[in-house]
Amino acid sequence: MTFPARCDTLVTNGHVLTMDGDFTAFPDGAVAVAGDRIAAVGPMADAAGVLAAEVVDARGGIVLPGFVNTHCHAAMVLFRGLVDARPLDGFLKAVWAAEAAHVTPATVVAGAAVGLAEMALGGVTHVIDMYFHPDATVEAAARVGIGLTAGPVFIGFDGIDRLPWPDRLRFAEDFVARHRGTEGVELMLMPHSAYTLDAGKLAEVAALSARLGVALHVHAAEAPSEMALVAAQHGTTPVRALDRAGMIRPGTLLAHAVHLDDAEIALLAGRGVAMAHCPLSNAKLASGTARMAALRAAGVVTSLGTDGASSGNDLDMFHTMRLAAHMAILASGEPDAMPAREIVAMATCGGAGAAGLGGRKGVIAPGRDADVVVIDLSAPHLVPAYDPYSTLVYAAGRSDVRQVLARGRRIVAEGRLVADLSEDLEAVRGLAAGIAATLRGGS
Amino acid sequence: MTFPARCDTLVTNGHVLTMDGDFTAFPDGAVAVAGDRIAAVGPMADAAGVLAAEVVDARGGIVLPGFVNTHCHAAMVLFRGLVDARPLDGFLKAVWAAEAAHVTPATVVAGAAVGLAEMALGGVTHVIDMYFHPDATVEAAARVGIGLTAGPVFIGFDGIDRLPWPDRLRFAEDFVARHRGTEGVELMLMPHSAYTLDAGKLAEVAALSARLGVALHVHAAEAPSEMALVAAQHGTTPVRALDRAGMIRPGTLLAHAVHLDDAEIALLAGRGVAMAHCPLSNAKLASGTARMAALRAAGVVTSLGTDGASSGNDLDMFHTMRLAAHMAILASGEPDAMPAREIVAMATCGGAGAAGLGGRKGVIAPGRDADVVVIDLSAPHLVPAYDPYSTLVYAAGRSDVRQVLARGRRIVAEGRLVADLSEDLEAVRGLAAGIAATLRGGS
Repeated sequence: MTFPARCDTLVTNGHVLTMDGDFTAFPDGAVAVAGDRIAAVGPMADAAGVLAAEVVDARGGIVLPGFVNTHCHAAMVLFRGLVDARPLDGFLKAVWAAEAAHVTPATVVAGAAVGLAEMALGGVTHVIDMYFHPDATVEAAARVGIGLTAGPVFIGFDGIDRLPWPDRLRFAEDFVARHRGTEGVELMLMPHSAYTLDAGKLAEVAALSARLGVALHVHAAEAPSEMALVAAQHGTTPVRALDRAGMIRPGTLLAHAVHLDDAEIALLAGRGVAMAHCPLSNAKLASGTARMAALRAAGVVTSLGTDGASSGNDLDMFHTMRLAAHMAILASGEPDAMPAREIVAMATCGGAGAAGLGGRKGVIAPGRDADVVVIDLSAPHLVPAYDPYSTLVYAAGRSDVRQVLARGRRIVAEGRLVADLSEDLEAVRGLAAGIAATLRGGS
Repeated sequence: MTFPARCDTLVTNGHVLTMDGDFTAFPDGAVAVAGDRIAAVGPMADAAGVLAAEVVDARGGIVLPGFVNTHCHAAMVLFRGLVDARPLDGFLKAVWAAEAAHVTPATVVAGAAVGLAEMALGGVTHVIDMYFHPDATVEAAARVGIGLTAGPVFIGFDGIDRLPWPDRLRFAEDFVARHRGTEGVELMLMPHSAYTLDAGKLAEVAALSARLGVALHVHAAEAPSEMALVAAQHGTTPVRALDRAGMIRPGTLLAHAVHLDDAEIALLAGRGVAMAHCPLSNAKLASGTARMAALRAAGVVTSLGTDGASSGNDLDMFHTMRLAAHMAILASGEPDAMPAREIVAMATCGGAGAAGLGGRKGVIAPGRDADVVVIDLSAPHLVPAYDPYSTLVYAAGRSDVRQVLARGRRIVAEGRLVADLSEDLEAVRGLAAGIAATLRGGS
């Protein structure tokens, strides 16, 4: 590995986990960043003499690619913990009422900014976000400096953005045209689910996806109540209903994918469909345990998502990794069901692959986006640290994230967000009282 | 509630959760501390004019009793993450080899100090700790300032402290005599388990417990491998083997208690035996899911333990609370299987009850020990906070702990440990290289 003579940022003295296919690591390593890309990675010895505009000293910590959160609704921090102890259907009913009363582009900016800030502070450098008023989320992501896959949401009724179906299709085309090439923004079309869209509308979105060359992100097979709804509406399972509509094809990313049969797993693997495992949400809502071992054995690209803070109730990829391990072990009875490094891979390179960004993110390698996280190992709860992957999954937490670079820009420095979000935090606190009143009035 | 005219410490402007039987809370509350006890708790308005030597401003945060961690082996942080992905039996074999080579009173002091510091930083004010060389753990607890229930360990073979059985019994009596009245130290006798002690030795320990008037803490019914071992050695289940020995009696605290039948649950309830639920360890080792709903319905005193950092792999009561909720929901399929406030109760007043300290700890009330924790709600991941119990269980983490008082003494101030443990941290880091080499040599 050849380091350049000069670079913009040099991350030094870290245990660098590249997260490439061989789990290549440099126990005393360095990463050079030039512009928004990684210029080089290798042993510290090879980086001697490199001139850098800024040196980020990892001081014996862990350096890894930023987490890719593959399923989120960031603005739903507005409803964090508002509705606990209900299954998906009852939860949605209550949350939808609160959304109808309180979600506007302005509240989405504030809510998404707080959610994206939480993620950045926890080492997330890119997130796939599905929510109404996606331009507002784009604005919030720019404020925080985090990478974002955004897209228009499709839902069969008017929705809280009050768009009739033809306007929704037009909005989608416009949104895609508007944001092709927006710095830090990637695009997907986001049909909500087979239980909120009929067969005709699903097919229309699939056709639009093909025509625009933009992949699909859709909820599927999350909970028992959904399975029953889709059976009643489509006479089959969610994955099969999506397949009939032409949505089960390369690049599609399913959120949750908990309740799958063997044939569906084989179908997803054969068609190059990825899935976002969302353990925090699946556990809290009693949705069930995704069949991660079977999905991975079949070759499905697996990744990790936090889901929204209204179901989870937080946006922490460390909790998500740890619970993914625990749920896999509990479901199988096998303590080696999901080795720690495989979990870290799902949260990084797996996430990049699921997002359709496999060549650009998720691995620390020359030419990739400079999405780099430094984990500090000095807190008592990380002493000692025998194995870096085990440390990340079973002991570390978001408070151990010290530095975050997203596309070469520092968005977290010394554990603090670089952007000032005090106004967004205040706005969300101010909204919360009204939101609580609405929900109590309606229940 | 009458506040005194003067006190030593006044905690102000917090949402005070007293954790009494009625979940009494003061949304804008104050707590007065005099010496090592709570003098008063109530609305801020009632505390106007109180003169305090020190004011701790909770600034809109949550104030609650310190967590009581009812099952730990603090010094085993020495082996944190050393052995992952093995079930209890294989895990124990590997860890016992490392312990035999590296555990001495000096290494226990260093390891326990690091583990107890981690707990204090996470809001734990009292911990029940079972480990060899308990005088070393007493020394470490005094250094950190945390409350400790310590006791002699009983194991049927010589053990890593190399005490033959008669010496072990003598050591136990001496330890109890030595520490009756030691500041901050409570006593239990700690027979390891029915699979490491034969019926005769269990009965001897039970008799000693009765004679000394010191309650018992024992591992029981943790994992499938244990059930098989105890069936082979005692011809019955762990709980029945302990009952034959006279150990299933008021004040006894079982660690784990995962694999229980209905009759055993009824027995524990009827005899006033408590249990320490250890979800982090149970999940990671694939031990199983404790029957918390049945235990609580029967009236068993339930509490939460982290277990040691070698199995868990951390000592975080927030993770423990959240996983307790998730496991209860996943096992039952019911999202309301374990309401958040019940989980917080297990971690506080439940823990105090299980430790035999129900009248002294676990509740913020006049006359109780001044074990008080302040949670800061300013981080983005805690915005907004609709319900304080939900916030604690589903969104907060150890990094949100700002202030900790243990028996009236501040042991964590502004999120930092008051004691300087840099030497202990350095010692543990230094030991880790040798420990890793031992294990690799032996495997």
